[in-house]
Amino acid sequence: MALVVQKFGGSSVANTERILNVARIITETYQKGNDVVVVLSAQGDTTDDLIAKGKEINPKASKREMDMLLSTGEQISVALCAMAIEAMGFQAVSLTGWQAGVLTDSNYSAARIKRIRAERIQKELDKKKIVLVTGFQGINKYDDVTTLGRGGSDTSAVALAAALHADLCQIYTDVDGVYTADPRHVAGAKKLDEITFDEMLELASLGAQVLHNRSVEMAKRYNVNMEVLSSLSGKPGTKVKEVVKTMEKTHVSGVAKDKNVARVALIGLEDRPGIAFKIFSILAKENVNVDIILQSIGRDESKDISFTVSQDDMGRAKEVMLANQDVIGYKRVEASDQVAKISIVGAGMANNAGVACKMFEALYSAGINIHMISTSEIKVSVLVDERDAENAVQAIHDRFFNEFGAN
Amino acid sequence: MALVVQKFGGSSVANTERILNVARIITETYQKGNDVVVVLSAQGDTTDDLIAKGKEINPKASKREMDMLLSTGEQISVALCAMAIEAMGFQAVSLTGWQAGVLTDSNYSAARIKRIRAERIQKELDKKKIVLVTGFQGINKYDDVTTLGRGGSDTSAVALAAALHADLCQIYTDVDGVYTADPRHVAGAKKLDEITFDEMLELASLGAQVLHNRSVEMAKRYNVNMEVLSSLSGKPGTKVKEVVKTMEKTHVSGVAKDKNVARVALIGLEDRPGIAFKIFSILAKENVNVDIILQSIGRDESKDISFTVSQDDMGRAKEVMLANQDVIGYKRVEASDQVAKISIVGAGMANNAGVACKMFEALYSAGINIHMISTSEIKVSVLVDERDAENAVQAIHDRFFNEFGAN
Repeated sequence: MALVVQKFGGSSVANTERILNVARIITETYQKGNDVVVVLSAQGDTTDDLIAKGKEINPKASKREMDMLLSTGEQISVALCAMAIEAMGFQAVSLTGWQAGVLTDSNYSAARIKRIRAERIQKELDKKKIVLVTGFQGINKYDDVTTLGRGGSDTSAVALAAALHADLCQIYTDVDGVYTADPRHVAGAKKLDEITFDEMLELASLGAQVLHNRSVEMAKRYNVNMEVLSSLSGKPGTKVKEVVKTMEKTHVSGVAKDKNVARVALIGLEDRPGIAFKIFSILAKENVNVDIILQSIGRDESKDISFTVSQDDMGRAKEVMLANQDVIGYKRVEASDQVAKISIVGAGMANNAGVACKMFEALYSAGINIHMISTSEIKVSVLVDERDAENAVQAIHDRFFNEFGAN
Repeated sequence: MALVVQKFGGSSVANTERILNVARIITETYQKGNDVVVVLSAQGDTTDDLIAKGKEINPKASKREMDMLLSTGEQISVALCAMAIEAMGFQAVSLTGWQAGVLTDSNYSAARIKRIRAERIQKELDKKKIVLVTGFQGINKYDDVTTLGRGGSDTSAVALAAALHADLCQIYTDVDGVYTADPRHVAGAKKLDEITFDEMLELASLGAQVLHNRSVEMAKRYNVNMEVLSSLSGKPGTKVKEVVKTMEKTHVSGVAKDKNVARVALIGLEDRPGIAFKIFSILAKENVNVDIILQSIGRDESKDISFTVSQDDMGRAKEVMLANQDVIGYKRVEASDQVAKISIVGAGMANNAGVACKMFEALYSAGINIHMISTSEIKVSVLVDERDAENAVQAIHDRFFNEFGAN
């Protein structure tokens, strides 16, 4: 007998039929002798509809009241799903964030979970009930309702799994696992049976969009075994854990594409010490996150520095650079969002120099130009023109996963 | 400076425009220097829609989960209204039943308020905030959400007014006060400036449907000054209080009609002691509420007993009587729901024998037959054929309120 936490996203509970489907998955897990704690998101577009309703009344509504409004969405989901489970002849109890003891800080709309007082959940599990908990929400020290922001329900699920020492945290979604590349765009993309937390973190931050980083970070910190799977297919998904069996091999887990990236270049900097520090401390002060950095010697004794930021930050980054042109000292600034970042991720990569080489070769063969390169222990990222992004992913994926049965 | 509790019903907050209207009423009250606590119902048909959603998934959904589901409706209302008040430049805070400290028993779907822990509300009032509280809901000793059933939000408002020692509890609705008769059906119906709790209780139980009895009973018990008024007209409403100025006069407050009534008659009972006791103890055991009772001597040494019940109970009352025909001993049972109860209510009535007489005279002049009569300190009720109901109300109302400028 194990304790399993199962999380279902908004599309999995969007209507009566899907709620009944979710209830079937839950009760099947329960019937196998497991204790089951379920975390649900709001149904379908409920959260967006509530936001629109609030904004219609007050476009600058306080975050405290917006959280009060939005938290109703998950409450509806858990109550309806409890009813569905009851209809199948099992005992269920739905709990809101405060009933479940999810304590957060007071950062409304983007709160962080500080602690979970799991006594109530434990008591209900002891009564052999299936426990349903609202995702995405908690309460702060004032007893006010908070929401956790994007990816909140995944985070709720992992936090509960950690607090309850669950054996497994299953994240049900509309894809049936983590793939070697986005299966909607890349021919031959394969589902992975397992992947490490670190690889998953790189894939999530690189735009694979299966799990939210916050939840994976938390799962890694508390060593919660996760599994990503589909609520519709019924097939086994992808396990996310600390160490995976295939780790000793040269191992590339996947190819990811991130189009939410922009490149800013400062041309004609004086070649004197401390200039990079100055640039990036100015950006840090403005809360602009910089990803890849490239420094190159220019033609005429000067040098260039380019860096990437998210597309949202591009305008601000350029403004800040212009405002500080005298302090930094450069000739001109260029910015473009017509770029994309393509990455390969794999836990065994650091020990195998040939991996990056293989990636560049694939891009070269496909006639794709590389603007910037960045590497870490478990990934290699390149910046290419946005129009080349799809081809780049396909070429790299073919090279690693399809050509010689490689990897 | 006073403390005012204002309650707005579902139609008063049905859409953005109406919520903004309600926010205007609230902020105007606040600007006059009052502390304001607001109780809101769910928007428009929200509660019915949620019930339908639940029943679709499980027609026999547990009441605990149904309460969890339904309580979201009021939470949406208070959050949206708080946003509207913020948009007008005032500080507001919305509170759910548990945040506001509304403690109830565990009778899901029809819970009774046991106590209100008003510390949180008081703290927010001390900060000069307008406080919005979800009507219709509370929590029980298990920290589970309960709802108060029909008339619940009125009851929430009165309970909060009592707990906070409010100076006034205003119930905003879609009619602009208590009338001498239903203004939609009776020509010449007049709005009353004030009415006593007892009169209001009689009118409510007699089908006037302005305030729910539970709230009036509670207001009477804790001596909470109530006012019924319209959220749309802006006119003064009707004050409900312990003693009213006009009380010393012969005073008829209103004429009410109740069509939800049925008559059951037992014909040919033996004329022996204890038989009435037997009949009504059997009915009491079956939880059938009996209203008017008429006992009459029949033609042949036997007697008849008839009584009225609500239409819902008619079938059961008849069944129970048939099942006990031998025990009770009667010839036959008749039942009809083609009847209506017409009542006049007035605090000064007991001291003036002419009032009932005037009522019967009015019915006689209109050619309307009276089946049964029942009187109390402050009311006279008659049972008439349902087809005569409208005419009866009009005739009585004309006689008391319109003919000689009477009353």
